[in-house]
Amino acid sequence: AIALVGCLSLAVELQAGAGGPGPAALVAFVRDKLSFLVTARPTAVNMARAARDLADTAAREAEREGATEEAVRERYEDFEPAPLTTGPPCLSTLPRGFLVGGVSTGTRPYNQGARLTAFELVYEQIPATLIADSMAAAAMAHRGVSAVVVGADRVVANGDTANKVGTYQLAIAAKHHGIPFYVAAPSSSCDLRLQTGQEIVIEERPGQELTDVNGIRIAAPGIGVWNPAFDVTPHDLITGGIITELGVFAPKELQAALTTTISSGGGTLGGPQL
Amino acid sequence: AIALVGCLSLAVELQAGAGGPGPAALVAFVRDKLSFLVTARPTAVNMARAARDLADTAAREAEREGATEEAVRERYEDFEPAPLTTGPPCLSTLPRGFLVGGVSTGTRPYNQGARLTAFELVYEQIPATLIADSMAAAAMAHRGVSAVVVGADRVVANGDTANKVGTYQLAIAAKHHGIPFYVAAPSSSCDLRLQTGQEIVIEERPGQELTDVNGIRIAAPGIGVWNPAFDVTPHDLITGGIITELGVFAPKELQAALTTTISSGGGTLGGPQL
Repeated sequence: AIALVGCLSLAVELQAGAGGPGPAALVAFVRDKLSFLVTARPTAVNMARAARDLADTAAREAEREGATEEAVRERYEDFEPAPLTTGPPCLSTLPRGFLVGGVSTGTRPYNQGARLTAFELVYEQIPATLIADSMAAAAMAHRGVSAVVVGADRVVANGDTANKVGTYQLAIAAKHHGIPFYVAAPSSSCDLRLQTGQEIVIEERPGQELTDVNGIRIAAPGIGVWNPAFDVTPHDLITGGIITELGVFAPKELQAALTTTISSGGGTLGGPQL
Repeated sequence: AIALVGCLSLAVELQAGAGGPGPAALVAFVRDKLSFLVTARPTAVNMARAARDLADTAAREAEREGATEEAVRERYEDFEPAPLTTGPPCLSTLPRGFLVGGVSTGTRPYNQGARLTAFELVYEQIPATLIADSMAAAAMAHRGVSAVVVGADRVVANGDTANKVGTYQLAIAAKHHGIPFYVAAPSSSCDLRLQTGQEIVIEERPGQELTDVNGIRIAAPGIGVWNPAFDVTPHDLITGGIITELGVFAPKELQAALTTTISSGGGTLGGPQL
């Protein structure tokens, strides 16, 4: 959704004549705008990759003999990025019938679980229950949870996974209860350029998201705040495996499996470089 | 706070002449009101105990030869309950200097952590940071958490502890990180009549608390809800000990320690019976 809104805004600007004059200035303008979009969500490797592909495609057009600003502008309009899936609700990555019932955590402070994952579960007609983030371990102990499936913003070479904050805590609770823990992510969210999760930059967001609700302050005055948007789950806690459109892999198999697929023509899997 | 508001409401009713006529009817009226107050928070054993003591004291007054409604009414007004501490912010139970810095979780859906624990930490001038419930494990991994201290609504004979939902998840995360986990509770929150945590009745609250924020629905329509107010942390996860005004005890020492104190004149420690 972030990528869509960002790209549509850019499209509106381009159609209104922004950028230029000249093909080189136009390319620089778009690259700059896309850079800004990518910094808004540094963990989302597939968004960065799509942005880089778009910037590169247009840059090649601009470098052609006799390139015009108009031709480059058209190249942007025609660009078709690879399918983009990000954020926690990655149900589309799951094999049909994989989920027979679901429990969605609320995902404070942005409530993605209550808003998006809950919507997807209802839409897919999977009987599902909403709980608060703090109730996950209790649900595992008392509600018959048989597997935990989370999304991913970025999976690195050793299988360490960055996802919405709280994922790490879920993985620990799943391990404690002997429940398999899966990451569901398109292969475009895998970033083999980074070796371990320690290299992933975690976005920290304004404290107001925790101290205020709907613009009304709820927290006691004077309290400090720490508000990381993501956390990293080490690969050894991903006991079920990493579910991709290419198959389900143990974290230690991921790198080899994706490299094989790529060398047989499955596409490129690098890190973001914009 | 629940007990205070409940008792003040009852005091206002009594002062306005409610209950009666006659001492027996007045005692029955108050016992009935207190019963209702206790059912509002079934896990809080010390509130139940204070309510029972109040009801019993007045009942004894009513059974005296020539008891009048007025005398019983005065007995209620004069009643001084044992000090009452409940809920997550049990900082007053901690030895001075025990906390040099704090991290308070938000405690969805009621935000007690953001509102009450944060207030107590600021008030006690303990440098403290607010996080969301989902961030506790990440804080343990990256913020140098050296101990976890939670409150208790009820500690039973084997040390199993009922407290605000999310406590169990915190205890699992603490164990995973090798961080000692303490329960801070006045001895009046210990209920030696129950042998294990499985006997504790957990209050389930309206789903609206999770689907709505400040009266505005945030959750997708059609999603189910599970909203337990408390969970039970098994005694083997309470690795640091149970901090009471009588000392710090390992869960398995608690029963003997409290029984010794009681038999040497420290008071009675039974379960609620109203």
